[in-house]
Amino acid sequence: MEKFKVKFLPDNKIVEVSKDTTLLSAALSCGVYINSACGGDGVCGKCKVIVKSGKVLTQPGGAITLEQRKQNFYLACQTTVHSDLEVEVPQGSKLDYAELSSPELQDRLKGFFNAPEEIEPVKAGMREDFFARSPLTTKLFLELPVPSLEDRVSDLERLYYQIRQVSDFGAIQTGLANIRGLSELLRDSEWKVTVTIGRRNDSLEIISIEPQDTSAKNFGLAFDIGTTTISGQLVDLNSSTILGTKAVYNKQAAFGSDVISRIIYAQEKGGLERLHNTVVEAINEMSRELIEEHGVHLNDVTCVLCTGNTTMSHLLLNIDPAYIRREPYVPTANFIPVIRASEAGININPRGLLSCVPGVSSYVGGDTTAGILFSGMYKEQDLSILIDIGTNGEIALGNKDFIVASAASAGPAFEGSGVASGMRASLGAIQKIKIGHGSRLDYQTIGGGKPRGICGSGYIDLLAELLRAGLIDRSGKLKAGVDKRIRASETGNEFVVAYKEETATGEDIVISDADIENLKRAKAAVYSAVSILARHMAADISKIKKIYIAGGFGTCLDIENAVHIGLLPDVSREKLEFLGNSALAGATLMLLSAQAFKCAEDIARRITYFELSVDPCYMDEYMAALFFPHTDLNRFPSIKK
Amino acid sequence: MEKFKVKFLPDNKIVEVSKDTTLLSAALSCGVYINSACGGDGVCGKCKVIVKSGKVLTQPGGAITLEQRKQNFYLACQTTVHSDLEVEVPQGSKLDYAELSSPELQDRLKGFFNAPEEIEPVKAGMREDFFARSPLTTKLFLELPVPSLEDRVSDLERLYYQIRQVSDFGAIQTGLANIRGLSELLRDSEWKVTVTIGRRNDSLEIISIEPQDTSAKNFGLAFDIGTTTISGQLVDLNSSTILGTKAVYNKQAAFGSDVISRIIYAQEKGGLERLHNTVVEAINEMSRELIEEHGVHLNDVTCVLCTGNTTMSHLLLNIDPAYIRREPYVPTANFIPVIRASEAGININPRGLLSCVPGVSSYVGGDTTAGILFSGMYKEQDLSILIDIGTNGEIALGNKDFIVASAASAGPAFEGSGVASGMRASLGAIQKIKIGHGSRLDYQTIGGGKPRGICGSGYIDLLAELLRAGLIDRSGKLKAGVDKRIRASETGNEFVVAYKEETATGEDIVISDADIENLKRAKAAVYSAVSILARHMAADISKIKKIYIAGGFGTCLDIENAVHIGLLPDVSREKLEFLGNSALAGATLMLLSAQAFKCAEDIARRITYFELSVDPCYMDEYMAALFFPHTDLNRFPSIKK
Repeated sequence: MEKFKVKFLPDNKIVEVSKDTTLLSAALSCGVYINSACGGDGVCGKCKVIVKSGKVLTQPGGAITLEQRKQNFYLACQTTVHSDLEVEVPQGSKLDYAELSSPELQDRLKGFFNAPEEIEPVKAGMREDFFARSPLTTKLFLELPVPSLEDRVSDLERLYYQIRQVSDFGAIQTGLANIRGLSELLRDSEWKVTVTIGRRNDSLEIISIEPQDTSAKNFGLAFDIGTTTISGQLVDLNSSTILGTKAVYNKQAAFGSDVISRIIYAQEKGGLERLHNTVVEAINEMSRELIEEHGVHLNDVTCVLCTGNTTMSHLLLNIDPAYIRREPYVPTANFIPVIRASEAGININPRGLLSCVPGVSSYVGGDTTAGILFSGMYKEQDLSILIDIGTNGEIALGNKDFIVASAASAGPAFEGSGVASGMRASLGAIQKIKIGHGSRLDYQTIGGGKPRGICGSGYIDLLAELLRAGLIDRSGKLKAGVDKRIRASETGNEFVVAYKEETATGEDIVISDADIENLKRAKAAVYSAVSILARHMAADISKIKKIYIAGGFGTCLDIENAVHIGLLPDVSREKLEFLGNSALAGATLMLLSAQAFKCAEDIARRITYFELSVDPCYMDEYMAALFFPHTDLNRFPSIKK
Repeated sequence: MEKFKVKFLPDNKIVEVSKDTTLLSAALSCGVYINSACGGDGVCGKCKVIVKSGKVLTQPGGAITLEQRKQNFYLACQTTVHSDLEVEVPQGSKLDYAELSSPELQDRLKGFFNAPEEIEPVKAGMREDFFARSPLTTKLFLELPVPSLEDRVSDLERLYYQIRQVSDFGAIQTGLANIRGLSELLRDSEWKVTVTIGRRNDSLEIISIEPQDTSAKNFGLAFDIGTTTISGQLVDLNSSTILGTKAVYNKQAAFGSDVISRIIYAQEKGGLERLHNTVVEAINEMSRELIEEHGVHLNDVTCVLCTGNTTMSHLLLNIDPAYIRREPYVPTANFIPVIRASEAGININPRGLLSCVPGVSSYVGGDTTAGILFSGMYKEQDLSILIDIGTNGEIALGNKDFIVASAASAGPAFEGSGVASGMRASLGAIQKIKIGHGSRLDYQTIGGGKPRGICGSGYIDLLAELLRAGLIDRSGKLKAGVDKRIRASETGNEFVVAYKEETATGEDIVISDADIENLKRAKAAVYSAVSILARHMAADISKIKKIYIAGGFGTCLDIENAVHIGLLPDVSREKLEFLGNSALAGATLMLLSAQAFKCAEDIARRITYFELSVDPCYMDEYMAALFFPHTDLNRFPSIKK
């Protein structure tokens, strides 16, 4: 097979690949992450690159304009290598991880997470003293009685005996690795050792035995693996305090922006492995940063608790998610046994444990379970709703007697994909917009610099403001001639949010009729999911006690505007409560308490999955939601007024 | 470091070693097994070799006569390499594994083991219907309901559900390896699979999942790892029948004939690893032969159950046995958790299990537990005694209320070591002797050919016959002049059993005063251990219901002669019952029944270890037993008569 060298600019990364390799996979194989929202199908047009020199073959397609073709623009996913190449990756085609410096990213994502005092299981108001502290792993310092001719109990049984003296642990297992070194260790440490005991489902295991007293240093990590964002926390398991939180974008996005395109990618040769490695590398990277920042040794991190939607959980464990998207949509496992973290490639203490939050079905995963646990709705008399808005969102409705959950795929529009000027919530994204009189428009960007595009919360503000200013009608059509920012385009009308003179890209930032249509569909998907679920359960939304809003999207979400465009139901505002990243918070709870984990298992078993599309009213409900805020204005009394 | 080539004759094996390496370790490193009863201390004189060419350095010592020195005889353990060498290993210095062909060995060791019908747990008279059949691993054939839109239970939970439909198994764990391939496997096999479920102490684990119905093929192996002999059985776990039995000599003998010298050897660099590998290789070799002979696939062997004394168990698992011989004599573990066989290097199904019979103390191991289980003495109203005679023997006394056990190291004399013409029970060994009138002596050799030496059972016959013929006195001294076979030697008198004309070695086969002294000490060790234990428990030996005799030694043991020389107590003969290899039989029982294993755990916990040497009467009792049959003839009424 002929091999060619491809050099990617401006990174100057060079990779040797076989003839006929796509530029996209060549880029990925040398760590150049190119945007590829559609997963390489040639339809999203996000992976444009410029071939500076060399010979390529490409598939014709509509995503490249004639003008761009003249400038040697190609779709990386549709173009194959036929000689040594020099390829430039324009800023707009790169996944924008590095564009937000770490403190800014941290700052931006801060609201994402509850402050330590909020998440602390015994302090959080509603959950006070609810869960016993019983972390996934526990360290015990033991001073063993020294054997004598009168006391010849074997070393291992002596250890067990002493464990039972200081704790209420029952039968405990020990792996051969720990037994092999035991005798020497006990004598070298003069019978003073620290054992780390982990919970492996219903049994207990000695994870490690260390000389002397190291019991003060026992740490765990909790992760929420989202389709778009991976967030993690380092937790002191002794004091039940959160030491630090981090979030990074899920680089799996390079293989498709939603779970479906990633499942498809996983079917390619080496695809599953690559998706798995990508998420594990991200976790290891975050862990390393977290422990370095807090002066923790890797060996003292003895457990990890992960949550995520079902596809993310499968990919984390290198389990083929193929059957999640094939009828009848059955995952390999919802309840995954506790394993050694090293089995999944996660670097902590070599014998440390990895536990995954149990999920419910192919499209309602452990993140929903964790969110419900954290919301506390599962133990209330009154009905509540949990709305987790994201590329792959979930809705749950229930109380102490029942819980029903549905998957509501809002699509990637609110994440900045599938909309002309859309971008992720990163440096240069317009995140807040206010339209004033006389075509005046104020916006605020992440990082405060020149705008590069609009992120989800910016679009919600923009839609609400366009409605309030009367610049779009209730179907979302821009009204030509009403404002000088509205102008005709090839496909209809568009509204200029920022003129090229003021942008970082030198191009106008606009919202078009087509963009509004996409956003309208996304909000309709969420709203109609809530409606159908409520109707299916014969629940009156106005009588619901609480509507919890969760997810990364919620951070900058202006709740009033979200109601205004019909994304959230129009209930009295004190009922709408922003939970932050409830999935991560729930995972941390489970890390700290076996009782919380058991509770989550019960929740996962109790949840009934409801497939929205099988409801005969679903289409009607969805169609009715394709207005701002809704066809039936009576459902939005505060807006009607 | 200078390297030299050493060639060993007659095997023509060549090895390159560093200067200063001993000839013994050079030989071992290329698979030439030289006898080394003392473990390389230069005292046993068993490792004599002839240096044919090259330069060596040696330590002076008494084991080589001046005559031998002239013929270039050296002790392999005391002689180091200082040039390329040619070394001849005389027949007498080699461990005699290969000298008995496999069928002969099998034949010789047959009596060792109970016939299948005797060992079968539900058939064996005393134990009828006592233990439920519940093997260490079970195969279940499952036809899973095919998932549909109405039945979307995940694959793993579907599997668990079906297991619960056809069995009474409770919570079951599954490793990641099995989960990873599960979805594809279920669909490829059209939802018909066989799961192998193993018992890992108190939890259950799915060991493997295979397509279609393979449940008819489920096999296990039981091993008794003795200091001298390793015996094993292949068992059909479905029908609870023994398919075949094998025994080989434990090649660890090359590193010392008893457990103490092996523990010492384990402290040398690489020593533990070498001892471990030696026993594991033997097990793998036996397994391979057994499964080949019975047309079984390695993958269908799903579990192994091993027993052995505490040192053997530690070496099997590559656990340093150092502390077994250091005061206060504490082993690393008596109860060893069930592990994967591959963790110990044993080749069966890659995920198959290894379980070890629980032991009691450093010198009372799982073999005693297994023997007591098999004897049934632990559940009788009346007291019984179990005597396991071997290099490292054990005595147990008890009933359903208590069991006391002691270690009685008979030493290697009965195994053919430490006696001039002694040899192991292998080809050419005199195993039966009858002395007639007029210096007539009839003997029978293993294999029927010319004699090479005398094995343990031969020595017992010989001593009894010498006593009966009045050729030795009760202290064991040969009576000079009474028989022409008795003649003077350098150290006293000796009795010629076979003249050089009739032997295979061309040398006389004799028993000397010194040999008799050694044998007398060995029998005194066993007898006095039984006496002390009985006295300690205030038990009248004549009132004991049964005395079970176990061990490899017992096979050819003439019980009448053993009583005659005072090895066994003089009780009515129907009380003396030969059990065969009760340790192996007990292990097989445990392989077939979790209930039997639980029972063995109870037995191991119940047994009180009694250290003979702390009894103030021990020395008196031992001294009194240094007569044939005993100082106190009243203890041997049938002999007195």
